[in-house]
Amino acid sequence: MTSYSGRTMKCNEDLENERKKCTFDPLELTHLLDGGEDKTKERRDRQQFFLSDAELRDDVPNEYLSHKEKFENSIKKACALFKKVNESSGGGGSVDGYRQVLGGMLGSAVLNDGNPFALHFVMFIPTIMGQGNVEQQAYWVGRAWNCDIIGTYAQTELGHGTFIRGLETTAHYDPKTKEFVLNSPTLTSYKWWPGGLGQTANYAVVMAQLHTKGKCHGIHPFIVQLRDEETHHPLPGIVIGEIGTKLGMNCTNNGYLGFKSVRIPRENMLMKNSQVLEDGTYVKSPSDKLTYGTMMFVRVVLVQDMSSHLSKAVTIATRYSAVRRQSEMKAGQREPQIIDYVTQQYKLFPNIALYFALRFSANWLWEMYNSVTSELESGDLERLPELHAMSCCLKAVATADAAAGVETCRLACGGHGYMTSSNLPCIYGLVTAACTYEGENTVMLLQTARFLMKAWGLAASNQALTPTVAYLRQAVGRGSEGTFEKTMQGLIRAYWQVAAGKIKLCHQDMERRIRGGYSSEDAWNMTSIELVQCAESHCRAFIVEKFAERVSSLETSDALRAVLAQLCELYATYWVLQRSGDFLRFAGAKPQDIEDVQLWMESLLTLIRPNAVGIVDGFDICDEILRSTLGSWDGQVYQRLFDEALKSPLNREPVNMSFKKYMQPLFKSNL
Amino acid sequence: MTSYSGRTMKCNEDLENERKKCTFDPLELTHLLDGGEDKTKERRDRQQFFLSDAELRDDVPNEYLSHKEKFENSIKKACALFKKVNESSGGGGSVDGYRQVLGGMLGSAVLNDGNPFALHFVMFIPTIMGQGNVEQQAYWVGRAWNCDIIGTYAQTELGHGTFIRGLETTAHYDPKTKEFVLNSPTLTSYKWWPGGLGQTANYAVVMAQLHTKGKCHGIHPFIVQLRDEETHHPLPGIVIGEIGTKLGMNCTNNGYLGFKSVRIPRENMLMKNSQVLEDGTYVKSPSDKLTYGTMMFVRVVLVQDMSSHLSKAVTIATRYSAVRRQSEMKAGQREPQIIDYVTQQYKLFPNIALYFALRFSANWLWEMYNSVTSELESGDLERLPELHAMSCCLKAVATADAAAGVETCRLACGGHGYMTSSNLPCIYGLVTAACTYEGENTVMLLQTARFLMKAWGLAASNQALTPTVAYLRQAVGRGSEGTFEKTMQGLIRAYWQVAAGKIKLCHQDMERRIRGGYSSEDAWNMTSIELVQCAESHCRAFIVEKFAERVSSLETSDALRAVLAQLCELYATYWVLQRSGDFLRFAGAKPQDIEDVQLWMESLLTLIRPNAVGIVDGFDICDEILRSTLGSWDGQVYQRLFDEALKSPLNREPVNMSFKKYMQPLFKSNL
Repeated sequence: MTSYSGRTMKCNEDLENERKKCTFDPLELTHLLDGGEDKTKERRDRQQFFLSDAELRDDVPNEYLSHKEKFENSIKKACALFKKVNESSGGGGSVDGYRQVLGGMLGSAVLNDGNPFALHFVMFIPTIMGQGNVEQQAYWVGRAWNCDIIGTYAQTELGHGTFIRGLETTAHYDPKTKEFVLNSPTLTSYKWWPGGLGQTANYAVVMAQLHTKGKCHGIHPFIVQLRDEETHHPLPGIVIGEIGTKLGMNCTNNGYLGFKSVRIPRENMLMKNSQVLEDGTYVKSPSDKLTYGTMMFVRVVLVQDMSSHLSKAVTIATRYSAVRRQSEMKAGQREPQIIDYVTQQYKLFPNIALYFALRFSANWLWEMYNSVTSELESGDLERLPELHAMSCCLKAVATADAAAGVETCRLACGGHGYMTSSNLPCIYGLVTAACTYEGENTVMLLQTARFLMKAWGLAASNQALTPTVAYLRQAVGRGSEGTFEKTMQGLIRAYWQVAAGKIKLCHQDMERRIRGGYSSEDAWNMTSIELVQCAESHCRAFIVEKFAERVSSLETSDALRAVLAQLCELYATYWVLQRSGDFLRFAGAKPQDIEDVQLWMESLLTLIRPNAVGIVDGFDICDEILRSTLGSWDGQVYQRLFDEALKSPLNREPVNMSFKKYMQPLFKSNL
Repeated sequence: MTSYSGRTMKCNEDLENERKKCTFDPLELTHLLDGGEDKTKERRDRQQFFLSDAELRDDVPNEYLSHKEKFENSIKKACALFKKVNESSGGGGSVDGYRQVLGGMLGSAVLNDGNPFALHFVMFIPTIMGQGNVEQQAYWVGRAWNCDIIGTYAQTELGHGTFIRGLETTAHYDPKTKEFVLNSPTLTSYKWWPGGLGQTANYAVVMAQLHTKGKCHGIHPFIVQLRDEETHHPLPGIVIGEIGTKLGMNCTNNGYLGFKSVRIPRENMLMKNSQVLEDGTYVKSPSDKLTYGTMMFVRVVLVQDMSSHLSKAVTIATRYSAVRRQSEMKAGQREPQIIDYVTQQYKLFPNIALYFALRFSANWLWEMYNSVTSELESGDLERLPELHAMSCCLKAVATADAAAGVETCRLACGGHGYMTSSNLPCIYGLVTAACTYEGENTVMLLQTARFLMKAWGLAASNQALTPTVAYLRQAVGRGSEGTFEKTMQGLIRAYWQVAAGKIKLCHQDMERRIRGGYSSEDAWNMTSIELVQCAESHCRAFIVEKFAERVSSLETSDALRAVLAQLCELYATYWVLQRSGDFLRFAGAKPQDIEDVQLWMESLLTLIRPNAVGIVDGFDICDEILRSTLGSWDGQVYQRLFDEALKSPLNREPVNMSFKKYMQPLFKSNL
């Protein structure tokens, strides 16, 4: 089952032949990725339930509407979707039901450019659950869950993003009335970006600088009502609207928000951790690390999301490359499928490999997150810094690599990839956004680098190291000599050597600069280009190792394992070649080794070639989720491009009004 | 003068301070780039004339309109623009007037997402002039020039782009009626992409396979009427419409076109080169290379265009980075300007350098194009292959580097770069399109590689070499030994060594594969990843050398020359580090050399830092052309972001209709 809307065309022959060539069973891969045959069935049933519903489809594609119409249509569809979630769960809805529908593949099938209610479920409710005390949870989560109120999460301001301490919105406690007074003291203090804030939500969790008894205690969360529950009119003192169009995500209704002495009851401060007593006394949280949880959760989920988006892009580009025939490889012969060009394979297959690399890393991160969070509950904070360091660099590398991968896939489809109907531009819009939100990537890598510099210090002074940096122990006091071994295990070792070599070099450069009279802050800044690179190297070594581990530990048929092992080797060899200078400098590789890895990598492309379509088929992304003229199961690329073009409202009339109104008068005037 | 619409705000203080720090006179740079003080004045006067006109501005920004409204608005503004060109030239218009207004900076200020009439001037008229005989020129160019007719250029089809020989549209000559009969024999033969084809043009130059006397003679150009001149209705047999929305360029009205036995007179075949006589006899062109001219012209212009687009992006990101303050470098101190972070400098300054690199290469290419074309006129085809090879690789490298540069600038602006009002998403849309149009980049690089393989063969057999590949002579028979010298001259030599080393390696790999029994076509395909890379290395060596030559030959003050020399070194050191593996393998660099180049590159960032704003000020791009909330001259970033957001039609009403219509009924039902 690859389409739930009943629309079928005969399959393209080239694509059919590709499917016959496959050496493994794509369905086995599907089950593996879903986590079992029963999970596959469950997912497909859920998709069938939602995607066969005509009410959730558009007559005129979103991209032809005005910005305002897009918003109104997204609210209409989001409401229809909620109704359906409710139906499916037999009333009341379920956390899982909402999550499945709002996030991930299914959500993007219905609302492909964002959902104005997303933050209600993804941030508003979870923040109240994570930061509210028991009474607050009971009151607010109930109301939010019933959708008596719709909330969002207002943190970022015009003047401040990743650097949270710099936020300027203030909440002053007034003990006389037992209220907080919220203000936006400057233009840069206006909240800016929260999804659903523009015209959708009537409540928000607002992050503001808490002032009480003449002292500022830093950023704390407050529940603030924005609009009247009955009329939806903005309340007095609330300055609110949407921030305008963006590169993508134009249906998320991102908004701005200013406060002019807005009063809220004391009870609206979320008080699970810190508290303000009635008289204004501030009671500090036992640990300020307890608020890290939600931020890390979002980053963990992001890595998973990136692999999903990428899987769509590679499915589209791979199928299209099997269908598209172009140019002349040998005189007189039929035009080849472009997937037979090695340069095309070099664009596609490393991104298929990247999908698995991100997917397996996301799994690891999810498991670590869960165990660290449960340790946290029992007061054990030991592994928090390591989780923080890995979530930062994986967030940065996953978003950047996925964005580059999606663009490579788009460009691999030539001009047709530029068409909105390929869906590749929209996927890029969603992926590239993640490079700057939830922690800007360079800042993220520098956070990891700080952890690595500390770890190097511990290694050098022979102190205990946590698992992800244990490899530094061996690197201390060793040079870059050693041999570069051209096996998968040899490559993994080489990746760790590169990371260790770069970390060591950064540490030396920092020390040299400090000895030379620079402050440690200046030395840090001066070394930061290399620090970013060492965090990336660390992350990539980690990804390669986890990929290889996962492949050898999975329970699969030999046929599927062979394919996964090829992809793992492809990821590893590809990045050796991309960073060949590092391997020559730090891992004992010789120029001849690089040439050998090039041949190895090329041989992998040849091995993967017959299975390429089978692998992306195994992702089991139905046509309604792909939403792509170039990527559909049947490969009827040209017919679908044409059919989509006919949906353009401009094509409904033989002559547009602009001819009579503007062109004819001008041209008759005989310029 | 930096704004022509009279809107002024007090300048941001940080930006003012930056301007005071500058060590050279930005106006000198402006004059240098314009080609003299008088040219600067001329350009500014022209901008003043067009950009002070309120009729050419939008009340509601384009991005809020529906696709159809965008088209109608673009026709309205394009017509107003034509009227104004006509006024300015005192009636009749001028080639230069149209070119200045349609292409380049001024055109994009008025119509920022494409102009539906562009191909009329850029392709339709030039093709008739280049490929029509004298009578055809006299008749058609006159009508086109008066805008009695509006034309486009229809080459690309649904199924064929870069590989022109594969086009399927047919033109059969019928000697009985002395007409050509045009047909679209398949769905894939439908024309697809031509700008202005959808609802705008009434004529087109159509490229079709010419059949006469039972024989096919390949692709030839025909003038075909598409729509009635009075009513604008499509003529019988003409199937026409627009292809739908795209990643960008949504005002170019790209169209599709099919023919059902459409008859045109014999005289409508453009016959300057090949001809079909009345009886159907085909007379071949003396050389099929004569048609190359237009294609190369477009590529030459593209390299220039890319530098213009990039100059906007770096202006925006550099000014924003001077205004934006974020995070804490040293405890207790004011938040630093983000331009003081070395990682930020590393994103911005190499792209400032890239602008000059592309600009100077474009100048060189333009000069070569002109001299080769005049040689061509006198029958001398000798330098054509070299011009072809350089225009191909420069097209590919310029578009790819500019696209990456624009995205880096956008991401360097954090979340705000994602806003449409930053103008960075739109600039990216225009630039990335050029990676696949006018010759897909990988195909382009492989064309250059073919030239390089031949050149290596000539060098190895001691035959004459043309100037751009003369360096191969020394590389024959030499290994990769030699020393890597850390001077600018040393780097240039190293770049040539890298290119030669990679070309030699490709040649060896090709030969080894052929000896191993592969056909030369298969060997070519198997070596193609490396072939692409050797074409890129060749191109980059060329760019570095021309950059250095230009800097030393320009007549400037010492202060400006110092700045340009720093940027030249930055470009060179930056790409050594990006491709460090190549320099270690082929140019005798040692690991320590790479560390030294890293320090050299970092020292250049420090030197450029105080002049960064001055340099982009020197580009002299007025606010109306920049169209960016983040990049305006006065640096009032936050106020402008806010002002733009208020223009969103969603912000005109306190409550959107979707609340009463969709949200309230659903939520009242108590999910």
